[in-house]
Amino acid sequence: MISRTLLTSAAAIALAAGAIIPAAAAPNDSAGEALEARFDSMIDPADQVAWLKEMSSAPNQVGSPHDKANAEMQLAMFRKWGWDAHIETFQALYPTPISTTVEMIAPTRVALGGQEPAVPGDATSGNTAGAMPPYLEYQGDGDVTAGVVYVNYGMPDDYDALARRGISVKGKIVLARYGGGWRGLKPKLAQEHGAAGCLIYSDPANDGYAHADSYPKGGARPAQGIQRGSVEDMTTYPGDPLTPGVGATAKAKRLTRETSKVILNIPALPISYADASKIIAALQGPVVTGKERGGLGMTYHWGGKDAVKVHLAVKSDWSLKPVYDVIAMLKGSTYPDQWVIRGNHHDGWVFGAADPLAGQVALMSEAKALGALYRGGWRPKRTIVYASWDAEEPGLIGSTEWVEQHAAELKQKAVLYINTDNPGRGYWGAGGSHDLQHFANQAARPVMDPQTGVSVVERARAKILADHYEDPASVKPWLYKAAKAGGDLPISALGSGSDYSAFFQHLGIATIDTGFGGEDYEGGSYHSVYDSFDHVMKFDDPGMKYGAAVSKVVGRMVMRAADAERVPAHYSDFASTVERYVGELGKLATKQRAKDRELKELTDQGTFKLTSRPDDPTVAPEDKGITPLIDMLALQDAADRLERSAHAADAVVGQLDSLPPATRAKVDAQLRTIDQSLIDPDGLPGRPWFKNLVYAPGTLTGYGAKTLPGVREAIEQRRWDDAREYVKKTAAVLNAYADRLDAAVAAAGTAQ
Amino acid sequence: MISRTLLTSAAAIALAAGAIIPAAAAPNDSAGEALEARFDSMIDPADQVAWLKEMSSAPNQVGSPHDKANAEMQLAMFRKWGWDAHIETFQALYPTPISTTVEMIAPTRVALGGQEPAVPGDATSGNTAGAMPPYLEYQGDGDVTAGVVYVNYGMPDDYDALARRGISVKGKIVLARYGGGWRGLKPKLAQEHGAAGCLIYSDPANDGYAHADSYPKGGARPAQGIQRGSVEDMTTYPGDPLTPGVGATAKAKRLTRETSKVILNIPALPISYADASKIIAALQGPVVTGKERGGLGMTYHWGGKDAVKVHLAVKSDWSLKPVYDVIAMLKGSTYPDQWVIRGNHHDGWVFGAADPLAGQVALMSEAKALGALYRGGWRPKRTIVYASWDAEEPGLIGSTEWVEQHAAELKQKAVLYINTDNPGRGYWGAGGSHDLQHFANQAARPVMDPQTGVSVVERARAKILADHYEDPASVKPWLYKAAKAGGDLPISALGSGSDYSAFFQHLGIATIDTGFGGEDYEGGSYHSVYDSFDHVMKFDDPGMKYGAAVSKVVGRMVMRAADAERVPAHYSDFASTVERYVGELGKLATKQRAKDRELKELTDQGTFKLTSRPDDPTVAPEDKGITPLIDMLALQDAADRLERSAHAADAVVGQLDSLPPATRAKVDAQLRTIDQSLIDPDGLPGRPWFKNLVYAPGTLTGYGAKTLPGVREAIEQRRWDDAREYVKKTAAVLNAYADRLDAAVAAAGTAQ
Repeated sequence: MISRTLLTSAAAIALAAGAIIPAAAAPNDSAGEALEARFDSMIDPADQVAWLKEMSSAPNQVGSPHDKANAEMQLAMFRKWGWDAHIETFQALYPTPISTTVEMIAPTRVALGGQEPAVPGDATSGNTAGAMPPYLEYQGDGDVTAGVVYVNYGMPDDYDALARRGISVKGKIVLARYGGGWRGLKPKLAQEHGAAGCLIYSDPANDGYAHADSYPKGGARPAQGIQRGSVEDMTTYPGDPLTPGVGATAKAKRLTRETSKVILNIPALPISYADASKIIAALQGPVVTGKERGGLGMTYHWGGKDAVKVHLAVKSDWSLKPVYDVIAMLKGSTYPDQWVIRGNHHDGWVFGAADPLAGQVALMSEAKALGALYRGGWRPKRTIVYASWDAEEPGLIGSTEWVEQHAAELKQKAVLYINTDNPGRGYWGAGGSHDLQHFANQAARPVMDPQTGVSVVERARAKILADHYEDPASVKPWLYKAAKAGGDLPISALGSGSDYSAFFQHLGIATIDTGFGGEDYEGGSYHSVYDSFDHVMKFDDPGMKYGAAVSKVVGRMVMRAADAERVPAHYSDFASTVERYVGELGKLATKQRAKDRELKELTDQGTFKLTSRPDDPTVAPEDKGITPLIDMLALQDAADRLERSAHAADAVVGQLDSLPPATRAKVDAQLRTIDQSLIDPDGLPGRPWFKNLVYAPGTLTGYGAKTLPGVREAIEQRRWDDAREYVKKTAAVLNAYADRLDAAVAAAGTAQ
Repeated sequence: MISRTLLTSAAAIALAAGAIIPAAAAPNDSAGEALEARFDSMIDPADQVAWLKEMSSAPNQVGSPHDKANAEMQLAMFRKWGWDAHIETFQALYPTPISTTVEMIAPTRVALGGQEPAVPGDATSGNTAGAMPPYLEYQGDGDVTAGVVYVNYGMPDDYDALARRGISVKGKIVLARYGGGWRGLKPKLAQEHGAAGCLIYSDPANDGYAHADSYPKGGARPAQGIQRGSVEDMTTYPGDPLTPGVGATAKAKRLTRETSKVILNIPALPISYADASKIIAALQGPVVTGKERGGLGMTYHWGGKDAVKVHLAVKSDWSLKPVYDVIAMLKGSTYPDQWVIRGNHHDGWVFGAADPLAGQVALMSEAKALGALYRGGWRPKRTIVYASWDAEEPGLIGSTEWVEQHAAELKQKAVLYINTDNPGRGYWGAGGSHDLQHFANQAARPVMDPQTGVSVVERARAKILADHYEDPASVKPWLYKAAKAGGDLPISALGSGSDYSAFFQHLGIATIDTGFGGEDYEGGSYHSVYDSFDHVMKFDDPGMKYGAAVSKVVGRMVMRAADAERVPAHYSDFASTVERYVGELGKLATKQRAKDRELKELTDQGTFKLTSRPDDPTVAPEDKGITPLIDMLALQDAADRLERSAHAADAVVGQLDSLPPATRAKVDAQLRTIDQSLIDPDGLPGRPWFKNLVYAPGTLTGYGAKTLPGVREAIEQRRWDDAREYVKKTAAVLNAYADRLDAAVAAAGTAQ
């Protein structure tokens, strides 16, 4: 353990040298620039269009012949391009529907559900013979007939709104719309509230005609469009439900369906708004108004006490299915045991053209170009690992099982994981480890936006500034400030929803997820039959121009990370981000306490009795007690120390080239896997698989990140003991990170 | 003119006496309380139900037989109840439709328009033989066939959005939805932008199925419901378009239709969303998203360049029609030449049950009870004038012509005007002269909410507090602060839209407008055939319980104002409100300047070019220059002086009873018509009829108030010279008001 006096003195030296510049995140020689220019010249969007068309020509869900064929095609291409490639196979629980039934039986009998119809102008939309009917992976099977309650997004706030109206979902089928939080939380919360079944539909307010013309005229979800998806309880753990923490090899020890904690007990199915509107039109009870109603052209009612009855039945084949991960390597010349890993998945829900294949063909473009460079004599210092994951859709399975299977090796070797998924069109963005914020910006900066010809970073900056002009409240002040300052754009915190989870949140490996967005209509085809080659070509990324931009951004990240003297990081970016998070926690607790007190005061005064509407009677919100003062000093102290340690470390790294190689190696040894110091082996409360104490998917957001989650969620969910405990634990991982920084500074300082 | 030294010393005396209590706004003796109890006992909601049924049994628009019959029935009742009553008749321009045509002729021919159909359960809805077809008073007649542009609310922001897309309304028919600003501004702005015609429809997002079940199942506007209304340019002047500033007597000198500035040149009609949806479904062009789209179950497009063609034709009879104001008086015993005036109108658009008759029958309940008290021997000190106005709907004509005709007398005699219109159900509220804020609260406080049995003031307070709990951003901080403090609730500033305008904004007479709201569905029947007795009984005020509460609140105001030693006012409430307004002006200018600079910077940087969407190309917002610094010192100084003068005057008024009668009379002489000192004889820029420099309807809001309008609107509309001039003029009226306060304090101080 290094003393803080030592640190301060080493930092002072570095500071005096005026050396606070980011570590080399850009190629620092003309050779690097030339390499990148050659790489760019080989990225051909026409390749991507051709591969996309082939790979999305037939249903490619897990276990389908075309999914396997795609894996094998990629394997062959990797090999052709000079990579050392293989397919690694896992056996995962992947139920497939034997029968699915949705029908309204009262007040009138109406058959609902079934496959989406073909539409003119979409060449594959009729090619659904090998597709599954609309389905939710890891729903619970069952056969129920029950009344219906509309639950809006089916999130905790919505159950509060129902409780205030005395409406229970016990024994009912809930009808939830997509949005407001991750899909899997909807049936999970419904089940926790006693529901017998769950239907989820796509409301036109969220991804339909409110945003664009309906497909095929425009990119928006049509009346018959259905969003499939997984409802595995991924906020507990992702991957194969039967093998948490270990690779789902053929011989792995397995839980049973019944003992797995991430599979639902109630049946659930996704439906279209053409179907949902028939149920909604029949519901009675209090009227749903304001933000809780969707965009259908009718009055919404909560239902619950009326004569609407729906029959919902699901029967599935609960057998294991094979998962084909394609793994390809280019061996590093100098540090072969340091791996730069880059992945995207190849399984879709039906044709999966945008999700995931638009990202997959960008990855293949990179692999083709990198292979050509390699064959032409280029040798990256570090080993490059390209992964085409299978079974991301049901639960990030291909990546998770691979990471669990190779965990020990990855902890040693992985220096960076770079992910893409359905990368879209429009504005560049990235999320991940904030010590790589500058690195991500530098990699994106030289890449030109296909539409405007300016740097993708500058176009993204323009978007933040224009949004602020249109509606200042829509842009976070810190984001606006950073955009206006003209330097790096902040990257976002990662929650979940793609293959980085096991790397980032289970092992703590430094991670970047990147892509474009804001000008595509992938939301309108998402997880439906209409996520097709034609939809992508017309509405998402015509000509795969943004696909090419993705390749150029990610290719730079890969080449720079593989070739740099060390993986470039800028620790102050992480420190200042953590400082902001810690500040947010303080505000969260203060605001929640004030809100609790306001509620108590108003309830005591009878305010909610006085404001209950005659035609929509409500009781006061539930009194959940007063949020106590939580001592966060340890966290504030750790953030403060981190800030100073990071500045010192950045200064040292800035002049690393002037140090002798042996010293550099010592410094690098401290920093190379520094992000793993954010891991607590015990993980988060109630979900030990999630071990990163700075970034996690929210248990009640699912995709959305919760930063400093051990503390933040404990406050939000009123687990005060957890909050106090995780203040200490989180402070400890931040101190562990700072220890590494201090040790690096000490190593450099000792040498000088 | 009183010196400020004198003021300060007099104020110091008053302050030292600890006398800062409001002037007597409540009955200060048990006789007063007993009187009010007797009054309450005579307010019978069953009366109101019976009168409402009769008065709303047939169409009662201006010029209709039933409108005249209602006036005559009221005249007879006033007389029966002991009032000195008469009908005063004016002759006003009131065009009536000879023919109205709306039809879509391309891409397909669809007949649109026509009367609203009868619905089951609404007894009068088929009784439309004597009704006008859906119509907009003072539209311009014409026969046009043109393409259509959807303009959302048709407000300035919407034309900015169209301009950014290069869409012109020149020669087109605009299709605007109701909401976002006053009806009359929609065709006015359309005309200013070169449109050939205007259709206005009621979108279900605004008053239809988004809020409740459609009538007759619920109170919301049904698909065929149509909002009629006036499109006279009332922000220039209200009343008869041909006789601005003078009473529209038979012999009055008149403008012609062509020389009147408040009549449109283009044809305009209101339509239902059943009709509008057929046009919207056919429009092409860029997609309308976000807050600019309505709630129909389809994609909205701006139109403008497509094949949709609509034929719109209106031909009207432009003759004068009689206007019947019913005027009734109870003569004052002590101050017969001081008038307390109370009004509501009796003309409707069709049956007018909620608007205006629910307010009219409340007024009649008061008149019946006051008459009985009078017949029983009660003699108010001041004269009470009850007015049942005609022709409010086309342009506040009955009240405006009466006020213009009697202006000289009113300036001398009127001490207070109290208005109601369609008073609704739910939460009590009031607007008007802020020196009467305490008076209004005190009058409402003893009246119990029919639903919860607490004071209507306390229920209104509970609503503010509950709204703040649900969404803090939805409640203005000053309003929340006042509600939480537990004292008087702030009253709002009055814009326009009812009969107080001529009293308040033309003559400066102290005014209160009051009613209830928030739990009725009057928006769903507003200005349609369905504003019926049945709608009111089912959805707006079943049993007229809130009608009775209105009578009790207003009756107290009338009796207290008529019987008090002087009309009770609390000048500090006005002063602190003005202080807030002045503060708002400073913030407005600062914010606008910052926004101007932000726009210029972003435009110079090409930000808007970079963020133009490929499928919805937009150019930068128009550069309107940089808002200069406006010297507001004179205004700030006047507000500051007003604050001190008001405190001193309140102190003096608080101990008025201890002063000799002659002194009291001198003080009262200064204060009785003090609100008229807010009048500038030259009025507001471009609209000299509006003379109150503290309160006005906004030229670009119509109903909504603009406070300190000479300055505020000059800043908003970038008329910098006007802004500078009206800083001085507005300061002058505030100083004139303060002069009166100081003179009152001096009169009291001299006597002591």
